[in-house]
Amino acid sequence: MINMASRQKNRSEPVSELRRDLVTGNWIVIAKARGERPHVAKRAKEDLEDPIVTCPFEDPQDSGNEKPVLIYKDKNNKDWSLQVIPNKYPAFSGGKCNVITKIGPYSVRDGKGFHEVIITRDHSKHLALLPPDKIKEVFSAYKERYLALKDMECVKYISIFHNHGKRAGASLTHPHSQLIAIPISPPSASRSLSGAAMFYKKHSKCVHCTMLDWEREDKKRIVSENSDFIAICPFISRGAYEIRIFPQKHSAHFQKINESELAALAKIFQDVLIRLYEKLQNPDYNFYLHTAPIDDREYPQYHWHFEIHPKTETSAGFELGTGVEISAVEPERAAEVLRM
Amino acid sequence: MINMASRQKNRSEPVSELRRDLVTGNWIVIAKARGERPHVAKRAKEDLEDPIVTCPFEDPQDSGNEKPVLIYKDKNNKDWSLQVIPNKYPAFSGGKCNVITKIGPYSVRDGKGFHEVIITRDHSKHLALLPPDKIKEVFSAYKERYLALKDMECVKYISIFHNHGKRAGASLTHPHSQLIAIPISPPSASRSLSGAAMFYKKHSKCVHCTMLDWEREDKKRIVSENSDFIAICPFISRGAYEIRIFPQKHSAHFQKINESELAALAKIFQDVLIRLYEKLQNPDYNFYLHTAPIDDREYPQYHWHFEIHPKTETSAGFELGTGVEISAVEPERAAEVLRM
Repeated sequence: MINMASRQKNRSEPVSELRRDLVTGNWIVIAKARGERPHVAKRAKEDLEDPIVTCPFEDPQDSGNEKPVLIYKDKNNKDWSLQVIPNKYPAFSGGKCNVITKIGPYSVRDGKGFHEVIITRDHSKHLALLPPDKIKEVFSAYKERYLALKDMECVKYISIFHNHGKRAGASLTHPHSQLIAIPISPPSASRSLSGAAMFYKKHSKCVHCTMLDWEREDKKRIVSENSDFIAICPFISRGAYEIRIFPQKHSAHFQKINESELAALAKIFQDVLIRLYEKLQNPDYNFYLHTAPIDDREYPQYHWHFEIHPKTETSAGFELGTGVEISAVEPERAAEVLRM
Repeated sequence: MINMASRQKNRSEPVSELRRDLVTGNWIVIAKARGERPHVAKRAKEDLEDPIVTCPFEDPQDSGNEKPVLIYKDKNNKDWSLQVIPNKYPAFSGGKCNVITKIGPYSVRDGKGFHEVIITRDHSKHLALLPPDKIKEVFSAYKERYLALKDMECVKYISIFHNHGKRAGASLTHPHSQLIAIPISPPSASRSLSGAAMFYKKHSKCVHCTMLDWEREDKKRIVSENSDFIAICPFISRGAYEIRIFPQKHSAHFQKINESELAALAKIFQDVLIRLYEKLQNPDYNFYLHTAPIDDREYPQYHWHFEIHPKTETSAGFELGTGVEISAVEPERAAEVLRM
């Protein structure tokens, strides 16, 4: 593997603007460059169609992408098996750090950060169907890039996620994950951390460990388990067939995962994704990482995990307007179906 | 018009369960009955297909729906022009009020409430294309049903929304809105109210009035305006072509709207929806009402409004994982396009 982070271009023009909501205090992103992506103009109703001959990830550099910031080669060192490149249409990139200006009553800042794409070699092979060592490479790349970016100027939070299928927001068939390093602490992280801190103050125990203890005892919602990880359909699933994967032992920071744990994570992910693939007939889905803030402090109240959300339903007016999520399938039943 | 609220069945069996997230404190809904809806089992990739001959809203009662709780007749009193019926697959219905039980470490309660459907007569006529007096009927029905349900036992919040098109979560072509009365205060309402209260404490002014004053001065994001209402693409749009419609004068409670304001609301809605229909080629969209809590107290910090969200993009792993929304179109540009 060759880490080429130093070759990354220093883009200084901001590609997006962060604007702070006066009511909620949350920042939203106006990402100008992303409106230029080829698929955005079309009404996205049809299935994904990008045959291998026009795929920009088949030979990323030949398709005008920048050089990889990380590359893993295959055994005989001939072809790449995974590469990480800067996103050609980044949501966060150049700009100034921490400079907040005023426009009318609003606070505004540059969308400074990093936006990378983690690409596996095979054009059409679903992540679940790769050999276990190739799945492990994906999680190793997440860790390597997380470590490479976490101490960079302006970076307050790193989001790592994977979109599979058009209904999950993927714009290309070729399997890929994304990493976005942003200059703010996002609302979901802030809320989870403060909620977990409140629970810890009251019970002197990590809220996720408490929840997992009960899930292990109740058994009904466990989908898969190995010595290092447990996958459950959480009691408070926000959608049908939602799955969360947690380390069995308390651990706040994903980036502290070791080699054998990476192999165990790849194994449980493959098991869970194959179950989804088979039982729900290859559904579109998103998964993403939730981990403690990038500082290396202890977080006794927080437990890192992945959340997997199959697109079985569409959030509509009620969910958008209230923030209350409705799941049409009991998680107990979802786990039972997935275990079969 | 005949209000038949009293005929509504008293369903005592809970159709859903509310479960409280240990981390965030938010309630999620497990709605068992909704998994049985005819379209849920299928992968929702194709367009909506429900021709008039099989449409359950063409003659709702003939299709096994309950009697209307509100009906508006046409001029010669022969046919109905709008009716409100209980949803056949409710997300909230019978059950106990305010009884919280414990399951493991979790709090659980019945999803007691009301779930109604507001149906206009024409099978395929987009809301924007109805005559103005028929659009006004839709908002009159919202108001009537809001007033009929707001003092019912257990009702803490009433969500009113409209889903247009499959990508916006609609399961039927026949235009309809929905009303869901729920036994909790939802997170988006709680957050907006507390954010608005903080702003009011600091500035002694409604945050929405402050924002609208600046929008009127800056002009760039105004889409449409009449003496009673203003429609803008908000400076902090959470998605491309998002539009919000506010009363020009401070008003916290939607249900206090009078007859002439209802006509003005119908007029600006029609103008805005026709612009969306023409400029974005009949996009799928959701719209929903945000209004002050159902008690009739004064809320000097809050201003009711409708939010319209065209489905131009799909929320993917980044938005779902962080809660940070990305809009690919600047609201200034969106308003310019819509004004053309």
